[in-house]
Amino acid sequence: MSEVLPPSPGRLFGLGVGPGDPELITLKALRLLQAAPVVAYPAARGKNGNALTTVAGYLREEQIRLRLVYPVTVEKLPAPFCYETALRGFYDEAAAEVAAHLDAGRDVAVICEGDPFFYGSFMYLHDRLAGRYQTEVVPGVCSVLASSAVLGAPLVYRNQTLTVLSGVLAEEELRRRLAGCEAAAIMKLGGNFTKVRAVVQSLGLLDRARYVERATMAGQRVARLDEVDAETVPYFAMVLLPGECWGSVAR
Amino acid sequence: MSEVLPPSPGRLFGLGVGPGDPELITLKALRLLQAAPVVAYPAARGKNGNALTTVAGYLREEQIRLRLVYPVTVEKLPAPFCYETALRGFYDEAAAEVAAHLDAGRDVAVICEGDPFFYGSFMYLHDRLAGRYQTEVVPGVCSVLASSAVLGAPLVYRNQTLTVLSGVLAEEELRRRLAGCEAAAIMKLGGNFTKVRAVVQSLGLLDRARYVERATMAGQRVARLDEVDAETVPYFAMVLLPGECWGSVAR
Repeated sequence: MSEVLPPSPGRLFGLGVGPGDPELITLKALRLLQAAPVVAYPAARGKNGNALTTVAGYLREEQIRLRLVYPVTVEKLPAPFCYETALRGFYDEAAAEVAAHLDAGRDVAVICEGDPFFYGSFMYLHDRLAGRYQTEVVPGVCSVLASSAVLGAPLVYRNQTLTVLSGVLAEEELRRRLAGCEAAAIMKLGGNFTKVRAVVQSLGLLDRARYVERATMAGQRVARLDEVDAETVPYFAMVLLPGECWGSVAR
Repeated sequence: MSEVLPPSPGRLFGLGVGPGDPELITLKALRLLQAAPVVAYPAARGKNGNALTTVAGYLREEQIRLRLVYPVTVEKLPAPFCYETALRGFYDEAAAEVAAHLDAGRDVAVICEGDPFFYGSFMYLHDRLAGRYQTEVVPGVCSVLASSAVLGAPLVYRNQTLTVLSGVLAEEELRRRLAGCEAAAIMKLGGNFTKVRAVVQSLGLLDRARYVERATMAGQRVARLDEVDAETVPYFAMVLLPGECWGSVAR
């Protein structure tokens, strides 16, 4: 007599797919991506998201695509509290959708731009699910290092300190955290660009700073900060402040 | 009448091979690595170095291996000036060895643990050669993100700041830079571990901090800081301070 047993739960994977160039995915992330019956990705309404665009060429027809639709696309809202509540609700719902596949015994690969634990949406799914399901995170190439490579500018020499900041921070906090930095990356620009540029300028760092947009993706752009039209800056752009050259030539 | 023309110079590649697991190399770095007639790698005397160990299984017999031997293996010397002079000399000589292959028309792939521009030896070759030869840098997965993945600990939430520090810094400077950090990685531990642990403890961060050794490599180890025997800490170990969880559950 055969008995129908509930399936063993599926495994949860957080896969860093790298900064945008499909060739900058790791062998491991690609292997796990192609083996997963379900591929999940957060995306803004009406968009596919960069992670899916990056790996689209690697997916098979029969893989289930689970789209997790963000409530809003940018963080600037008149009432931040509402946004935070909406976000929590979104992550709760997204986690439930992922869990339904895991409970049915299907592995789920959540694809993440850059690295899963470096400002990634996956972190919030991980916090909700990793305690209940077997979980593995595969690190990826982050946009900061991709931008540095694209610029051809070494980022941190020897014993220098690297500071990674969000452009969303208030002007005074940005200035305080950036003052005395040896190397820095300021991410999440978009509507914050004018403020960020003013802070960089006020600290006398304008000549050292570089602007990088969509590093390693189609439409990649590199510029000095004073060449950038603030109106055109996307959220996925950053200001990079490479460390000052050390030991380059005998002095 | 045929005339022997000098060959077109070779191209210089700086390839991030990732944190140690051979499967964490990117498709692009692997492709360029396997196509290069010369593979160069910095290594301490008598050692192969982690980068070569990582990619050894991908190399072909006929590829020339160019070993660039470091003058010393750690940075702690009684007279830092001597070390700096020795290092400059090493990089000058290494650049000349690489340049000889480039001048002979052979592409050279310099393999780099983690990422080439993130505390990498390649930076010093890049500074000496990128102006004279066609150069491309391929970013890699860095040890900080690999450690975060291995720990299963999300590193930076939302608008948190990440600070990456060298354990070589003096105690007071470490304390000053670590105070008020939201998320941090302290690299280059080795003989600096006791000092780093004392600083972390004095800032009340001991409970949040984690120790990671050889992330994703054979011999990987994860521990709380108070479990670590300072005598056994290698240079390639780090203390990670993951950012505090945000938005995990409705509060």
